Order: sequence, then structure tokens, then C-alpha cells
Amino acid sequence: MTNQTKRVIRAARGNELICKGWEQEAALRMLMNNLDPEVAEKPDELVVYGGIGKAARNWECYEAIVESLKNLENDETLLVQSGKPVGVFRTHETAPRVLIANSNLVPAWANWDHFYDLEDKGLMMYGQMTAGSWIYIGAQGILQGTYLSFVEAAKKAFRTPDLTGRFILTGGMGGMSGAQPLAGKMAKGVILVVEVDRLRIERKIREGYCDYFAENLDEALKMVKKFTEKGEPASIGLVGNCADVYPELLERGIIPDIVTDQTSAHDPINGYVPHGMSYDEALELRTRDSKAYEQKSMESMAVHVEAMLGFQKAGAETFDYGNNIRANAQKMGVENAFDFPGFVPAYIRPLFCEGKGPFRWAALSGDPEDIYKTDELAKQMFKEDESLVNWIDMAQKMVKWQGLPARICWLGYGDRHRFALKVNEMVASGELKAPVVFGRDHLDCGSVASPNRETEAMRDGSDAVADWPILNALINTCGGASWVSVHHGGGVGMGYSIHAGQVLVADGTKQAAERIERVLVSDPGMGVVRHADAGYGKAIEVAKKKGVKIPMLK
Amino acid sequence: MTNQTKRVIRAARGNELICKGWEQEAALRMLMNNLDPEVAEKPDELVVYGGIGKAARNWECYEAIVESLKNLENDETLLVQSGKPVGVFRTHETAPRVLIANSNLVPAWANWDHFYDLEDKGLMMYGQMTAGSWIYIGAQGILQGTYLSFVEAAKKAFRTPDLTGRFILTGGMGGMSGAQPLAGKMAKGVILVVEVDRLRIERKIREGYCDYFAENLDEALKMVKKFTEKGEPASIGLVGNCADVYPELLERGIIPDIVTDQTSAHDPINGYVPHGMSYDEALELRTRDSKAYEQKSMESMAVHVEAMLGFQKAGAETFDYGNNIRANAQKMGVENAFDFPGFVPAYIRPLFCEGKGPFRWAALSGDPEDIYKTDELAKQMFKEDESLVNWIDMAQKMVKWQGLPARICWLGYGDRHRFALKVNEMVASGELKAPVVFGRDHLDCGSVASPNRETEAMRDGSDAVADWPILNALINTCGGASWVSVHHGGGVGMGYSIHAGQVLVADGTKQAAERIERVLVSDPGMGVVRHADAGYGKAIEVAKKKGVKIPMLK
Ligand SMILES: NC(=O)c1ccc[n+]([C@@H]2O[C@H](COP(=O)([O-])OP(=O)(O)OC[C@H]3O[C@@H](n4cnc5c(N)ncnc54)[C@H](O)[C@@H]3O)[C@@H](O)[C@H]2O)c1
Ligand SMILES: NC(=O)c1ccc[n+]([C@@H]2O[C@H](COP(=O)([O-])OP(=O)(O)OC[C@H]3O[C@@H](n4cnc5c(N)ncnc54)[C@H](O)[C@@H]3O)[C@@H](O)[C@H]2O)c1
Repeated sequence: MTNQTKRVIRAARGNELICKGWEQEAALRMLMNNLDPEVAEKPDELVVYGGIGKAARNWECYEAIVESLKNLENDETLLVQSGKPVGVFRTHETAPRVLIANSNLVPAWANWDHFYDLEDKGLMMYGQMTAGSWIYIGAQGILQGTYLSFVEAAKKAFRTPDLTGRFILTGGMGGMSGAQPLAGKMAKGVILVVEVDRLRIERKIREGYCDYFAENLDEALKMVKKFTEKGEPASIGLVGNCADVYPELLERGIIPDIVTDQTSAHDPINGYVPHGMSYDEALELRTRDSKAYEQKSMESMAVHVEAMLGFQKAGAETFDYGNNIRANAQKMGVENAFDFPGFVPAYIRPLFCEGKGPFRWAALSGDPEDIYKTDELAKQMFKEDESLVNWIDMAQKMVKWQGLPARICWLGYGDRHRFALKVNEMVASGELKAPVVFGRDHLDCGSVASPNRETEAMRDGSDAVADWPILNALINTCGGASWVSVHHGGGVGMGYSIHAGQVLVADGTKQAAERIERVLVSDPGMGVVRHADAGYGKAIEVAKKKGVKIPMLK
Repeated sequence: MTNQTKRVIRAARGNELICKGWEQEAALRMLMNNLDPEVAEKPDELVVYGGIGKAARNWECYEAIVESLKNLENDETLLVQSGKPVGVFRTHETAPRVLIANSNLVPAWANWDHFYDLEDKGLMMYGQMTAGSWIYIGAQGILQGTYLSFVEAAKKAFRTPDLTGRFILTGGMGGMSGAQPLAGKMAKGVILVVEVDRLRIERKIREGYCDYFAENLDEALKMVKKFTEKGEPASIGLVGNCADVYPELLERGIIPDIVTDQTSAHDPINGYVPHGMSYDEALELRTRDSKAYEQKSMESMAVHVEAMLGFQKAGAETFDYGNNIRANAQKMGVENAFDFPGFVPAYIRPLFCEGKGPFRWAALSGDPEDIYKTDELAKQMFKEDESLVNWIDMAQKMVKWQGLPARICWLGYGDRHRFALKVNEMVASGELKAPVVFGRDHLDCGSVASPNRETEAMRDGSDAVADWPILNALINTCGGASWVSVHHGGGVGMGYSIHAGQVLVADGTKQAAERIERVLVSDPGMGVVRHADAGYGKAIEVAKKKGVKIPMLK
């Protein structure tokens, strides 16, 4: 293992295939891209993001997946079970090339204890959402979503999308949470991010995702004061533990305009870091006595959430940012932990009703020019959508490439397939240098059941109904996505969510166009169907206007 | 509703289509067949079997499914979510026509309380295993499996498959459990079945599944004595509650040769009936105070299991027959409830390793002659398999048709598709009068995760890993099964299992043959793969001998 852990993985670029078809090639490149040191949080441990979200179960499994993809015929399908390649069956050309199921457990055993037990035995891995499904594209993936949430929060609280002169407080600067400083700045605010690991802040500063480093709270507050007064957008990383900093701020009577948190609270052992000890002491305790660590972690979350509730009471626009911290705090006795809402019901659900979600694409050529050309296309096709055009302009300026060049852009039902068809034509004509993959986060409009996050407080009470992500995976398999995945756990942790993903290759062929017309209709279509079924007027309206077939819709 | 509850549903027979293709037609007929009064336990309530296992959420949903199937094009796919038709998307000709997800809940909410809450709101139904997936074929479906279990138990305990002169004790004579008296008799034993509802026994006697009715224990024991002494196979139904009868027998020192139980213990409210009161009193309590009922139910199960443990200690071959009664008894303090094994690790797993499982087919013509012809084919193709040939002979003699004529036969990897291809040819040539559907129970070799039943005590400890049934559903969707289903709960109840099903229509076309060659290879293939991955020597041997592609197999 020792020499293997030093390997550097980077996806091939350009137009030459080492697999027997573009779909296998795309799966191989996106798997490798997930482990590119520019992309992955801990590539040596195969960890892509989100605590322990992995791309393959172990190095032996990784090698076997690579080998399987290289040998896979165009009428075969590879099965991957929690990061291990377990079978190959003959299917047909328009079927997916890879089917993935990660971290799924029978409900009565769906807890961290049992999961870690299985992981210790080498029988499981944690797939997170886009780690084990090979469509993580670095911090940009979440950037637009985060930007969008800040803007929507601003609209709701201050009746303007403009956060000039406003103070945002949050926690976490890791894989996904690392998008926060830049997103806050894009929304024109002053954002303070509390992060326990100084290396994470330094990394984000190096990557251009964060502007300033603060060693202590006073230093940080001085900067906040200066920039808010000047009305100058800025991002500041403060080394510290949220469970220390949040209560301290509250005690000092300093109330931010917006408060949230994105530490990896979904995982009290390998994610969240407890307060009341130094970071090094915490790391030591984690290895020495994980049970004691877990207990401390849970206690810290309670303190952390209490402070957030305090800010809310004092008038801050406060929301949970999808890390399940409220549920953990509630377990520890904070009964009113759910007093502040999750970001989905608060800001994102109206978008889901239109089939919108974190759609994305990556250029297998490796050439940024290919993405710039798709940027132009999007700006042209959706020019009436001001915030979309703005997003692309800002992204071009501020987002650094990580791994294969990629773009994320929230498109809805009707727009996703129209856009992808055009891109497929550009691949066919040679305008783009190589095929493009289209995918999305598992956090999408019709692909997830997660009662503390994406499906929190559904209108009809169907928060916990998990039939939907399963139907999503099945219909996308029907339509011929290139690879399809079903995961359990994801961003909110074991027991709390089931979700599905799909990735589709546009290689310029007619067959790819047909698949696009099926999958990129049914996939966002599931969002419209799911929300119409739950009684959301907007989704019903979209279904009627755009002709989504819903048998019992009146 | 009042006049609707009197409707009698019966599938159309013969060669005339009311749908736009045979796959839709088959789905429609099999849905209706599930609700045929000859087949369903409570057709008025849409309940097919297994307590509350339903074919559609309610009558309105039933109508809408029928309508949707009639209108469904040959390149469309209908989505059914817990018995409600929720969407139709364009897919393609070789994709499944229907995708079904029933009763799936996010794990932390996967319990009866939450399920009933959702059911009350009209948001869910219980799909059981083959009820909501439209491939229940009445008691025969389970008959061969039950017969097989008794025979295997006999082999293990008495080193002979012949139960002549032996006494089997069991409970339950409902939908599935109603197969027990006949199966015990087929295995040549004397079987006593304790059933609380006298109407159930009378029904089984009418159907020819049970020979004798006993009003009380003494009467029953007299018969048992007479027939065992004569060495004459016989089945007896005793009106009574297992939690009364089992302990009483034990107290009297009467120890059967084989002891098991198949009351609907998976559901303590709508399934199991508590002792210590009359059946009528129990029914009254169930409606009046379901919480109190549940408590009594759970207490009775503890008594029931204690007696089974007593029989085991006294030397009876004792096993759990897949109703989760051990887990419920354990919850009530019977710590050693799992001292007796489940029937799967004890008798069935070796068959699973070869890809064997409860495969079945039904004749859409409605003509028994079609089934007799397939019987002949099976006897010819597998003539070296003595017990299979025996089974078909006995089934022809003793099994009464319920709804569409059907045959169940445990075939394994390699045999299922070879057999189905021949049948498809017989449809093509007109030798059979109409197409045939091939399906199976969700309880199959590679389609279920259920740690208290099908995946109990797996060699590698992977009992609770639910990636497998999901991959099973996805690969069968890839291959083009006619309909595919994923359910939660099933025979062991909420929280305890995830499982998948598939049904495939052989309409005599070349396209059907191609689908058969894919789906009826990958489906049992998943059983070989799953058990090889868990380290079962037999499965590894089969994989190697038959060329199942397993990337990391050494
Ligand atoms: N849109 C969404 O819903 C969404 C998006 C992204 C991430 N998330 C969730 O947010 C969480 C973070 O995701 P990630 O990918 O950034 O994980 P990560 O592990 O890469 O980063 C989390 C960071 O939080 C830091 N941290 C942990 N405990 C801390 C504490 N007490 N105080 C200060 N810092 C602390 C860690 O050092 C780490 O850098 C996860 O729970 C994830 O599921 C949700
Ligand atoms: N192979 C398997 O693993 C397998 C197969 C079939 C059924 N099952 C399980 O067996 C159970 C029965 O299935 P079913 O379809 O027959 O259900 P069912 O509800 O149709 O029949 C169960 C019968 O048990 C009777 N009963 C309930 N409590 C009783 C008691 N205390 N004493 C005596 N009789 C009692 C009921 O009156 C009913 O007739 C379910 O839990 C099912 O999941 C397992």
C-alpha cells in the first residue's frame, strides 16, 4: 500500500479512447477525475469529499474497476456494489454501461455502527452523493447552489438579492463547504467562515476561493467591520471551532444578517470536530477512542445549534445547510432544534417544482475552450434568465478549474435536454474537441428522499417516502443513461436519505441524441411529477404547461 | 365505495388484446389476476395476501392504472409509486413498460407507525412481495418452496426426504401459509396446522389444500396419532391460537418431529392474532384500540416462540418460516429467540448459490392445456432432476388452478433462460394458445436483503447490505424485463427487508427471445454473484463452471 498511496491519478484528456466505447471511457475518466488531487479531498485514501465519501472501496477495487471498464463491451453492463466491481452482464447498446449501488442498508440496520462494522470487514464504503457515482467536479459543483441559497435568503429577509454591506456567518471550509466563502462574495456580502483545520483555509485561499485568513476572532471581526462599512464584498476564514465561536459572538451581542453552517455534522466520528480541545487533541482522540469522540462531537453540536437558535431569536436569517446538525442536536436534548428551517423548503423547493437542480457538464477533451463554448451557448439559449447569465459570467471570472473543465448550471425541465442536444450537435460537428458528459448532484428535484434536507416539510407529509429516488434510478436506467447510481446516507448520514444519480455521455452520435431526449426529460420530469403529486401548485402548473404525463392529475 | 366493493375482477383470457402491446396486456391481466377472488385473500380491499399486501393503493388508483395500461404506447413506461400511477415517460421498445416502487421509506422512518401514518393519509400502501408487483399466483406460488423446505428439513434431521409416519406442527392457513397442509402431505407426512380463523381452514378444505377439520386439540391429536401410525399422509386444520396450542402440547410432552410457524407475525397489528381472548374479541380490540392490540400481539408471540424453543430443546427439528416472529419475541425479552434458525440458511441457501429460486410462469390464454404443455417440456428438459419431475407430477394431481393457470418450478442459472426460450418458440409456433409470463417471488437468490430471513447469517456478515436487490432491479431494467419492482418490508415487515422483482412476457417474438436471454441470465446470475461475493464455495464453483463474469473472483 505504501507506494500506492503516493500515486497521482488524473483522467486522460483528448480524443483517444483506451476503452471500447465513449461511455466506458467517460466512466473511467470521471472516476479518475474524482480522484484527481485538484478535485479530491484525500485522494490517497480514495476520499473525494464529504467526510469519507469515496470513489472506490479500496485500491484493489479501484484497479479492478479500471480493468473492467477497459474490457467492457458496448453491449455489457458492469455492476458496482459499494465501490467494488461485482459482476458484468450482457445487456444491450442503449442500456447503461455501469450500475452502481453504494452504502444501501436494510433500514433496521441502517446506522453508523453497523456501517462501520461492515466497512471494517471490507464489505462497504460510503458513497456520499457524487463521490461513489463519479460526478463530483470540485467546489464549483456546489458553488452555484450555495450562491443561489444566499441570494434567495437575502431576497426573503431583505427583499433584495444584493448582500452589499451584509454579514454572513457560517462554518466549514472542506470539500463542499469550501464553496461558501466564494459564494458569499459573489452575492456581494462579507462572509466569515469558521473552520477548525487551518490547512483547509490555506488551501481555499490558494485556490482563490477565500480572500483572508484570521488567526482569532478579534482579527476576524475587525475585517468584517471594515468591509461591511465599505460595502466591499469579502471572504474571511477564521481558524476555530464553531461550537466555541458561535456562542462567543452571541454573547458579545454581535448578530450577523445571515447564519448557517456546513461543517460535516452528518458524521459525528469522521466528520465533525468537537470543541473544548485543540484540533490535534481531537484528531488523537478520534483514533484512540472513537466512542468518546462521538459523544463529545454530539455534545458540541448541541452547543453549536443552541447558538444558532440564539442568533435566529435575535433576528438573523438562520438556516440549516443540509448537514443534519439539527437532528443530532435534537438527539442531545435540544428540543427546538428544528425551529430554524432547512435551506430546501426555505429557498430551493420552488426551483425543484420546475425540474431545476444542480445540472452540470464536463469536457472530456480537458480543454477549457470547450466549456467556454458551452457557456456561450447557455447564455444565448437562456438569455432572458438574468441570474443564469450573471452566474456564467461570474463563474468564468472567479471559478478555477479543478480536474476536467466543467460547468454547473441549474437548468429545469425542458431546458436540460434542449441544451444537451445542441451540445451533442457541437460534438458531432467537431466544434467541441471531444464528447461532453452531462450529470447532476444526487441532490436534485426528483431524485432524493431526505426528510431533514431535500424533502423536509413536504406539503403532503410525504417527506420519508423513498419510492421516488428508486423510480428515478429505474426510469433513467430505462432511458439509457451511461451510468446510474443509488446511494443511502449521503450528506445527511446513515439512515437519513436515499438518492439516485445519472450521468449521460454526449458523443455526437444519433444514439446519444436519443438517449438525451429520453433521460434528460424523465430525470427532471421526476422532479415535476414528485412535487405535483405532493400538491405543489407550481409543479402542477409546469406539468400542465409542458405536457408532463401524470395519470391522476386533475 | 359500497357498490365498488362488490365488484369481481377477473383477468381477460385468450389472444385478443385490449392494450397496445402484449407487455401492457400482460401487466393488466396479472394485476387483475392478483385481485381475482380465486387468488386474492380480500379482493374487496385490494388485499392479495400476507396481511395487508395490496395490488393497488385504492380503487381510484386501480382504475387509473388500468386506464394508463390501456393507453400506454410501446415506447412508453408507466411509473407506479406505492400502488398509484404517478407518471408516464417516453422510453423505448426494449425498456420495461412498468416500473414499480412500493412501501420504500427512508430508513430512520422505516417503521410501522410511520407507515400507517402515511397509509392513513392515502400516501402509501404495503406491497408485500408479489402483491404490489402483480405476480402472485395463489397458494401454489409458495407450495413448491414449502414442500422443498419440509423435504430438506427431513433430509437434515432424518437423512431421508420421506416424511412417512412423521408429525409436522405449524401455524397459519392464510394466503401463503395456506400452502403448508398440502406441502406437508406431498412430503408424505402428517401435518397439523393451527389457525385462529375457522373460515380460513374451511376455505383450504374446499380448495383441496387441507383434508380434515379439528374443532379441538384432542380431536386433532387423535387424527395425528391414527395417521402417523398408519403411515398415511394427511393434513389437519385445528381452530386455535398457536400461543395457546403450542405450549399446551409441550406441557403434555407431545413433541412433533418438525416444528415451524407461518402466522402473519411480521405485522403485529393487522396480521398476528393475540391469544388470551376469542378471535372475535381480538378483531374487536384491533379496531377499537390498535395500540393495546399490538401489545397483546407482541406478548403472545413471546409465548409462542418460547414454546418453539421448548420443542427444539426436546429434539424437534425447529425453524422460523420467514415471518419475523423471532425478532418480535426478542423485542419482548425472549433473548434466545434466534436459537432456532431461519429456513433459508438451514435449507434454501445452497439452492440460491446455484441461482435457484421460486421461478414461475402463467398462461395468458387462461387454458390449463398450455401449462400442461410447459410441464411436459420441463419434465423433458430436466429429466435427470428427480425431485423436479416428482414435483410437476404431484402438482398436476394436487394443485387446483387459481386464476390464470400457472406453474411454479425452482430453476437455476442457465436453466431459466433455456426453458423460457423454448416456451417462447412454442408461443411463436402456435403450440401454445397465447403468450406466457415468466416471473418469480421477490424471495429469490439474488434479489433480496433480509437479515432475519433470506440473508440471515451470511458467511461474510453482509446480511444487511441492501445494494444487491437494488442492483438486481437495475440490471433487470437494463435487460428489458416487462415490469420491475422494488419493495420494502415484504414478509418480514417494515424495516426488515428490501427486495426486487421482475416479470417478463414471452410473446413469441424475436425481441422477447433477446430479452429472455438477457434478463433470465442476469436475474439468477445476481444470485450466483451475490453468494460468490459472500464466499460460498458452491456459488464460486457455479460461476466458474458456467462463466458468470465476476471481476475480482480469484
Ligand atoms: N447543499 C447541501 O445540502 C450540502 C452541500 C454540501 C455539503 N453539505 C453537507 O455539509 C457538510 C460538509 O460537507 P463537506 O463536503 O464540506 O465536508 P468536509 O468534511 O470536506 O468539510 C467539513 C469541514 O468542516 C470542518 N469542521 C468540522 N467540525 C467543525 C467544527 N466543529 N468547527 C469548525 N469546523 C469544523 C472540517 O475540518 C472540514 O474542513 C456535510 O454534512 C455535507 O453533507 C450539504
Ligand atoms: N417463504 C417465506 O419466507 C414465507 C412464505 C410465505 C409467508 N411468509 C410469511 O408468513 C406469514 C404468513 O403469510 P400469509 O400470506 O399466510 O399471511 P395471512 O395473513 O394470509 O395468513 C396468516 C394466517 O395466520 C393466522 N393467524 C394469525 N395469528 C395467529 C395465531 N396467533 N394463531 C393461529 N393463527 C394465527 C391468520 O388468521 C391468518 O390466516 C407472513 O409473515 C409472511 O411474510 C413467509
